[in-house]
Amino acid sequence: MTYDLCAIGNALVDVIVQTDDAFLIQNNIVKGAMTLVDEARAAALYDKAGAVVEMASGGSAANTLAGFAFFGGKGAFQGKVGADETGRLFAHDLRAQGVHFTTAESPHLPTGRSLIFVTPDAQRSMNTSLGAAVAFGSEDVDAAVIQDAAITYLEGYLFDKPQAQDAFRQAAKLAHKAGRMLALTLSDSFCVLRHRAAFLDLVANEVDLLFSNEAEMKALYDTEDSQAALDKARAHTQIAVMTRGAKGVTVASGATTHTLPAHPVSSVVDTTGAGDLFAAGFLYGVTQGRTVTDSAYLGTLAASEIISHYGSRPQKK
Amino acid sequence: MTYDLCAIGNALVDVIVQTDDAFLIQNNIVKGAMTLVDEARAAALYDKAGAVVEMASGGSAANTLAGFAFFGGKGAFQGKVGADETGRLFAHDLRAQGVHFTTAESPHLPTGRSLIFVTPDAQRSMNTSLGAAVAFGSEDVDAAVIQDAAITYLEGYLFDKPQAQDAFRQAAKLAHKAGRMLALTLSDSFCVLRHRAAFLDLVANEVDLLFSNEAEMKALYDTEDSQAALDKARAHTQIAVMTRGAKGVTVASGATTHTLPAHPVSSVVDTTGAGDLFAAGFLYGVTQGRTVTDSAYLGTLAASEIISHYGSRPQKK
Repeated sequence: MTYDLCAIGNALVDVIVQTDDAFLIQNNIVKGAMTLVDEARAAALYDKAGAVVEMASGGSAANTLAGFAFFGGKGAFQGKVGADETGRLFAHDLRAQGVHFTTAESPHLPTGRSLIFVTPDAQRSMNTSLGAAVAFGSEDVDAAVIQDAAITYLEGYLFDKPQAQDAFRQAAKLAHKAGRMLALTLSDSFCVLRHRAAFLDLVANEVDLLFSNEAEMKALYDTEDSQAALDKARAHTQIAVMTRGAKGVTVASGATTHTLPAHPVSSVVDTTGAGDLFAAGFLYGVTQGRTVTDSAYLGTLAASEIISHYGSRPQKK
Repeated sequence: MTYDLCAIGNALVDVIVQTDDAFLIQNNIVKGAMTLVDEARAAALYDKAGAVVEMASGGSAANTLAGFAFFGGKGAFQGKVGADETGRLFAHDLRAQGVHFTTAESPHLPTGRSLIFVTPDAQRSMNTSLGAAVAFGSEDVDAAVIQDAAITYLEGYLFDKPQAQDAFRQAAKLAHKAGRMLALTLSDSFCVLRHRAAFLDLVANEVDLLFSNEAEMKALYDTEDSQAALDKARAHTQIAVMTRGAKGVTVASGATTHTLPAHPVSSVVDTTGAGDLFAAGFLYGVTQGRTVTDSAYLGTLAASEIISHYGSRPQKK
């Protein structure tokens, strides 16, 4: 097989601005959340924002793939950028890590951006304008790559777009027909609530490997009991992973439940990307034939690296 | 007066990539230096480079102005960007800090970029393609702003371009005719050596306030004795500042010499921008009517903030 992992997700560039709580309140920004905004709102917020601390490539599944490549895995990405400098930055960063990326650019829409306001308490409030990412559809699914990848990994955030849901179903069929595994991350509990039926259908019928945190798992199965939710996911999938922040991670695999503590870190700087990087480590373990416990350990290791510095992509030391 | 400080310099955006010494050697990159590269070399290095850690607005005088605005000073910038996203990022960041910036964009040239390779020893090797910045000339000098600014501050890096030298001489004349102060930073000892006669002429005839480090001061006066060089600068200017890294700063003002230690920092992360931010603090002090010693203290304070984190612009805590 040419690829260990094919990830399909939103192609986004993060624009990070330091601010204070007053700015969030004044501009009706939901603290700590990822809020989708249209181009007009994004432009208005950018105009009012303070100086940009940094711009860096982002996007949940793309972050996972960057981490996966950091471990040494061979990856491919499918997602849509615009024909602009921001898109070229995103593409450069993936290709610089040896990731295969050939999805056609949108000729009209700008590359998606996540305007991230960081407050002094290190919380991040994201305002994402999806731009070109929203245009990813069935015609962008690269069948040959999916058939040639051990695992295809889908980013739940794309469920907000009907044509992307179609693309996901198409990718799932392609992967299974070729005898490959299908993985999904639920991404966000609000996104799960918005599209619960579609998520449940995909999880029950197509997903082999499910990633989620507690809130997302509870949202998917409409229960306040995360263990009960995990047991339902256990019945639907081969492996269901539920990350629990500082409390570690619980993995349901067949009749077995594995619980691992979080990897200790001396100082938590920024928890953004912890879930993305957990998935990177876990998926790398699975593609290398490691046990579920070993894979989960690699996941906690990768998550601990990412929370010890700013930004959502791994850095060399 | 509308402005406390008008800075004229290269409009640049920093593109930061982590790498190792082998990459520097393989690609003939001079470690720790700022090397000017043409667009072709910049593009080739970018293609070979690893993933971008971050992009952020930069440029020496623009960094000084950002720091100056951080203290609360009212500033204006003159420098040339291209009609592209990178240029809009640069402009946004200055304007977000209340800095006046209206220099016309170059319709043809891309915004200048500094491709910065960071090695594990925290050294930064800069490869700067000036792009549109190179096109700044006399026609871009905004006389009304210079006449209405207490101090006009020139970035020595622009001496590599003959038309920018002309613009500098024009700006100096405008400032003095309006009874304002003229400041200059020597920027880089190699740049000083390349244009020694032109620098000396400007310092001897126009500069009221000179910023330099030891290497630059020695290069300007062609001596190995930095104190002897400072004494020559003392005869040429009202105030001559010589920063000495961890050893602090020496300021010659008339017959008086002030020596201050560096402000203590718990951990030096990245010394890039220390000189730029020293100038920010010092200039702020001068525009607020503080003594030379107080101004130098503000300079060491600003420099200590910038070396305690990555990047060359001040960050909120």
